[in-house]
Amino acid sequence: MNTRSLTEHSPDYHERAVFPQGYTCASRNVGLKPEAKDLSVFLSSVPAEAAAVFTRNRFPGAPVILGRETIRRGRLQAIVVNSKVSNVGTGEQGLLNARRMTVAAAAELGVRADEVLVSSTGVIGKQLPIDLIERGMVGIANELQSDPLVGAEGIMTTDTFPKAFSARVGNAVITWIAKGAGMIEPNMATMLSWIFTDAKIEAATLDRLLREAVDVSFNMLSVDTDTSTSDTCAILANGLAGEVDEAEFARVLRAGSIRMAETIAHDGEGATKLLRATVEGAATRDQARTAARAIINSPLIKTMAFGADPNVGRVLMAVGKCFDVEQDPALTEVLINGIRVFGDGSRPDYDEAALRVLLAGDPVEIHVALGKGDHSATAFGCDLTHGYIDENAAYYSS
Amino acid sequence: MNTRSLTEHSPDYHERAVFPQGYTCASRNVGLKPEAKDLSVFLSSVPAEAAAVFTRNRFPGAPVILGRETIRRGRLQAIVVNSKVSNVGTGEQGLLNARRMTVAAAAELGVRADEVLVSSTGVIGKQLPIDLIERGMVGIANELQSDPLVGAEGIMTTDTFPKAFSARVGNAVITWIAKGAGMIEPNMATMLSWIFTDAKIEAATLDRLLREAVDVSFNMLSVDTDTSTSDTCAILANGLAGEVDEAEFARVLRAGSIRMAETIAHDGEGATKLLRATVEGAATRDQARTAARAIINSPLIKTMAFGADPNVGRVLMAVGKCFDVEQDPALTEVLINGIRVFGDGSRPDYDEAALRVLLAGDPVEIHVALGKGDHSATAFGCDLTHGYIDENAAYYSS
Repeated sequence: MNTRSLTEHSPDYHERAVFPQGYTCASRNVGLKPEAKDLSVFLSSVPAEAAAVFTRNRFPGAPVILGRETIRRGRLQAIVVNSKVSNVGTGEQGLLNARRMTVAAAAELGVRADEVLVSSTGVIGKQLPIDLIERGMVGIANELQSDPLVGAEGIMTTDTFPKAFSARVGNAVITWIAKGAGMIEPNMATMLSWIFTDAKIEAATLDRLLREAVDVSFNMLSVDTDTSTSDTCAILANGLAGEVDEAEFARVLRAGSIRMAETIAHDGEGATKLLRATVEGAATRDQARTAARAIINSPLIKTMAFGADPNVGRVLMAVGKCFDVEQDPALTEVLINGIRVFGDGSRPDYDEAALRVLLAGDPVEIHVALGKGDHSATAFGCDLTHGYIDENAAYYSS
Repeated sequence: MNTRSLTEHSPDYHERAVFPQGYTCASRNVGLKPEAKDLSVFLSSVPAEAAAVFTRNRFPGAPVILGRETIRRGRLQAIVVNSKVSNVGTGEQGLLNARRMTVAAAAELGVRADEVLVSSTGVIGKQLPIDLIERGMVGIANELQSDPLVGAEGIMTTDTFPKAFSARVGNAVITWIAKGAGMIEPNMATMLSWIFTDAKIEAATLDRLLREAVDVSFNMLSVDTDTSTSDTCAILANGLAGEVDEAEFARVLRAGSIRMAETIAHDGEGATKLLRATVEGAATRDQARTAARAIINSPLIKTMAFGADPNVGRVLMAVGKCFDVEQDPALTEVLINGIRVFGDGSRPDYDEAALRVLLAGDPVEIHVALGKGDHSATAFGCDLTHGYIDENAAYYSS
């Protein structure tokens, strides 16, 4: 079985996240949370070509409804985000509050309101305390600085660390910033995630490259099968570094997006490890993706990974429950962290003690070969632990 | 909103489970488990008309493969079941062992081997210790007796109590026996579940009535979204009580099957309460079923129910993530245990303290009205707790 990872092409990452030319950010506590930072702004010194994808959830938040309108022009100069309240299920007033948030950010940062993308994350169904946000935004322009981690901090909810890194492409830089943790099964989009570059690329091209990258990264990520009402992934290209090789840009964009998806999975609510499932030999691309997702979403596989319990038959169950995936038990092969645990229709002899040791490690890698065709896919998830339950049994009240 | 439950028609249940005329059972420890019972047999004194449905998992166990062959004749006289090892992913040898199990039961009980249905439940991917089963079966005919709970005991895995009850239909009786607990999202079938009656009904009719009942009961049940490789639901009708009114029989069969689905949900691994979700006003029956299932399967709703945390916006997320379900936030209405928590596009004023008290109770009832059509469906699930993780992080090793 071919166990080559999709992450094989490793970009030239910076040791510590930096911004491309022309980008700055700031974050503050404006009173939505008791003490922690709850508002971030990101600014490009010049208007940037831009593209974005949003959640397919049929109950999208006000920022997503407004964001779809904003991105139509293909230009962005700033992003403003709050945590704690997601502004979802808030009707007309919610949409008005999202607009007020872009106007306040535009006034403070000296940019056009229709070139500001707004995002909100947190509890669903509560009105945004827009007065706190408007008052809290005043003077934030004086705090703009060049460390992406400062911006990433302001958008954390149940994340245990701020998520940002950057990589070189020719003379340009790409920087990824995201939040994740729970309610994570992005579909046609992702949890809040922004990508900044100083490469010169037109909006239409950016849109195509973003969709290609998201498709194999954030769209193959799940912490808990629950698709958020706020998922947003946007990319800004301000052109300050000039042109880059498009194929190379696309490769780095894809690899970095997969790395960010894995980072989010690894920091899934309560997670102790990354789960990576690759399905090969599928009859179609969709079947490979369906089966890979079923594996990383199975609560029984997630708890097996948590407990390092070599109950590997559960992988057969998870693939088998994908009724529309063509398969044949006699052709199916399963490897866990390189150990062949199923093949030729039954369980081969293998070293179960060694498997236990590997399952106790991080990541847990599951490979399934279906022997039905040439298509493959990789999905990213995490284990299911007591921490997930603790965080989500009292998230609203805490 | 109409909050009528599907369980409105309450059959005439016995206070304690009894068998219909002609049925007996026995259970034993044959050495698959250290001490607990691990083998059950069920016998009808005469051959019965029979029907069965099985898992749609594409990796079915040997007993399911054999069972599909057996049920084709529409007649059964006995059922033999073991726990601890499920005989799944075991190839040709597994199928041979399943056949040996029917032959051993047939010899001991004095019936035809092709009228014995075999089921196995437990770990996937291990060969069945068939010698232990064959030796352990000898003499079990002498222990046959009339308490259904004795048979239910022999098939428990992580169930916390044996599941059996019975109801009257005219002069006849219907008795349900099942196991549940984990890897529970039956599809076109159910976890191990048998239904016995002394009513006189032909196999073809039984088959139709069974499918109708399973469709609104076991097929709307999920503990953890993981569809077992062993799901089997069979019904035997030995005719000893003569004919009954078919419509009345169908109503009781359906209501009792819903009750058993709820019983299994309530005893889901680690569960502390039943979750019941009804979706009304859907454009199609499939859309109603999809949305109802999404609610009871959402880890974020399951943990909210566990923590009695009124994070009710999660219901909007769960319905909204069903991309193919026609809906409109402005028309959607949500009630939790009778309290209206969403309507007219936003959150109405309601008594959050009262909601907390209701969420702390059992069951948690979620009603969603979509306002898009006339179709409705109810799904059955449970909360997600530390107990689920404890049981499944070490199931194989314990």
